[in-house]
Amino acid sequence: MVQVVPPERIHLVVNVGDDLEMWGLHISPDIDSILYALSDRLDWVRGWGVRGETFRCLAAMEALGQPAWFQLGDSDLATHLYRTELLRSGLTLSATIERLASSMGVRSRVMPATDDRVRTRIETVNGMLDFQEFFVRERWRPEVRSVVFAGAAEARVPEPVLHSIREARAVIVAPSNPITSIGPILAIPGIRDALRCTRAEVVAVSPIIGNAAVSGPAGKLMDACGHEVSPIGVARCYHDFLDLMVIDTSDKELASSIRYDTIGVEVTDILVHNAEDAAQLARFVVSKADENSFVAS
Amino acid sequence: MVQVVPPERIHLVVNVGDDLEMWGLHISPDIDSILYALSDRLDWVRGWGVRGETFRCLAAMEALGQPAWFQLGDSDLATHLYRTELLRSGLTLSATIERLASSMGVRSRVMPATDDRVRTRIETVNGMLDFQEFFVRERWRPEVRSVVFAGAAEARVPEPVLHSIREARAVIVAPSNPITSIGPILAIPGIRDALRCTRAEVVAVSPIIGNAAVSGPAGKLMDACGHEVSPIGVARCYHDFLDLMVIDTSDKELASSIRYDTIGVEVTDILVHNAEDAAQLARFVVSKADENSFVAS
Repeated sequence: MVQVVPPERIHLVVNVGDDLEMWGLHISPDIDSILYALSDRLDWVRGWGVRGETFRCLAAMEALGQPAWFQLGDSDLATHLYRTELLRSGLTLSATIERLASSMGVRSRVMPATDDRVRTRIETVNGMLDFQEFFVRERWRPEVRSVVFAGAAEARVPEPVLHSIREARAVIVAPSNPITSIGPILAIPGIRDALRCTRAEVVAVSPIIGNAAVSGPAGKLMDACGHEVSPIGVARCYHDFLDLMVIDTSDKELASSIRYDTIGVEVTDILVHNAEDAAQLARFVVSKADENSFVAS
Repeated sequence: MVQVVPPERIHLVVNVGDDLEMWGLHISPDIDSILYALSDRLDWVRGWGVRGETFRCLAAMEALGQPAWFQLGDSDLATHLYRTELLRSGLTLSATIERLASSMGVRSRVMPATDDRVRTRIETVNGMLDFQEFFVRERWRPEVRSVVFAGAAEARVPEPVLHSIREARAVIVAPSNPITSIGPILAIPGIRDALRCTRAEVVAVSPIIGNAAVSGPAGKLMDACGHEVSPIGVARCYHDFLDLMVIDTSDKELASSIRYDTIGVEVTDILVHNAEDAAQLARFVVSKADENSFVAS
């Protein structure tokens, strides 16, 4: 997206349900991946962390008998140390992320969906797990019964997040896991209302092609939560605020089943292999949002 | 010393006046050097930290605009993270060091001189500096006016420290800086009393040969505190509890000036170049302590 829109015009509302405390540090995996991507440090091969990372501290922690299943890299640790120190000094998560982003030269606005504590917990046949325990430690293998967003009902949306949604030229729901990446954001009171009320076109790109997630446990979790694992299922997750759904060319015959009331559908190649593919998809999404928008830009 | 005495019989009472907080972590440089030495990980060339250390997190912290003058290595960080987490959970410093030592396979007993906050502060012509600011950041260059041990007067000695001093077969005052390494220990009420009252022989090895410290700012700081920079000056720092002073062969003509009342002097080669020299000096010190001791062992 930053290849086709001036970065400073992009506001990102990011999931904090995956956050965890490890070694006394506050870790925000989703936010960090975005900060690293936007500062051109993300390890795209691994999909997380910093390129060329080392894991010396992790090895030393393991030698001390401390938990080492969550792979904290040596460079990455600086992000967690700095954030944790700022949080302990009394800053909100939003303010700490603003400082981190600025220190990393990120020009887009990266906003946690809430400053309050929201934790995605996965009820499995073996008991309740924190999201990262399920996703990383157990490699999303246990059978899932349900997903809860602990703290979401009591969490507050920061005013700048609401403002960004209300005043946006377009709202793009990223092709992320609808249950555990987008879900914890939507579970915070006020977010769905803002999405329903914004004058901007709300466009979602499907994270599902055919009957499988492009990556990760989205399919497994959608299924566990009673949603059809298909672009149709994704559209239903967003039924109350979605204006436009972008699905893959290979799913074009689903368009008529998704189109409903005010929900439109656009078809293109959504499987992204490289930066060029990503730019092309971003350009497509932005142009379709503009075409359909009633907002004077 | 661990080469000549069973490690589990060695109790170390260690300075915490050099401790500092950095990046939200509690760092105990003196204790850590001892833990690394006793677990055979100390970088003897540098004199601190872990052998083969890397500094990736430090570089990332510097890139974030955070203080980077105190060289925290990636492996070393694990020690600080673990200690800080244990302290935050409510454990005393003594208890956290006990856990760290045990995790590292250290069989000797490593004890902070106090669980309370004592901070060595150096009054320089440019103002007050914390010890590490003076020692590391300013490379002990500023002219020194005085040294204070903030918090020492209010600090309490843990009972096991007093017990170790009282029940020891010998007490060895290491050839450390008398002002900023031994001084902050002696400044804690109860320690000098215990040293005066113990039945064990109290032996000090001089950190000064001739008129200069073997390493570091001991000479500069002794001078600033009004002490003669010589083995005689060192003996005077310990005058009220010292039984035996070990000085270098090259200083043997000072022996008669140091001998006083109950203070004896032994002469040997105290400049240590390698593990073999160290073992020889340790054997000498232990044998002299035994010879002079009235304690049945």
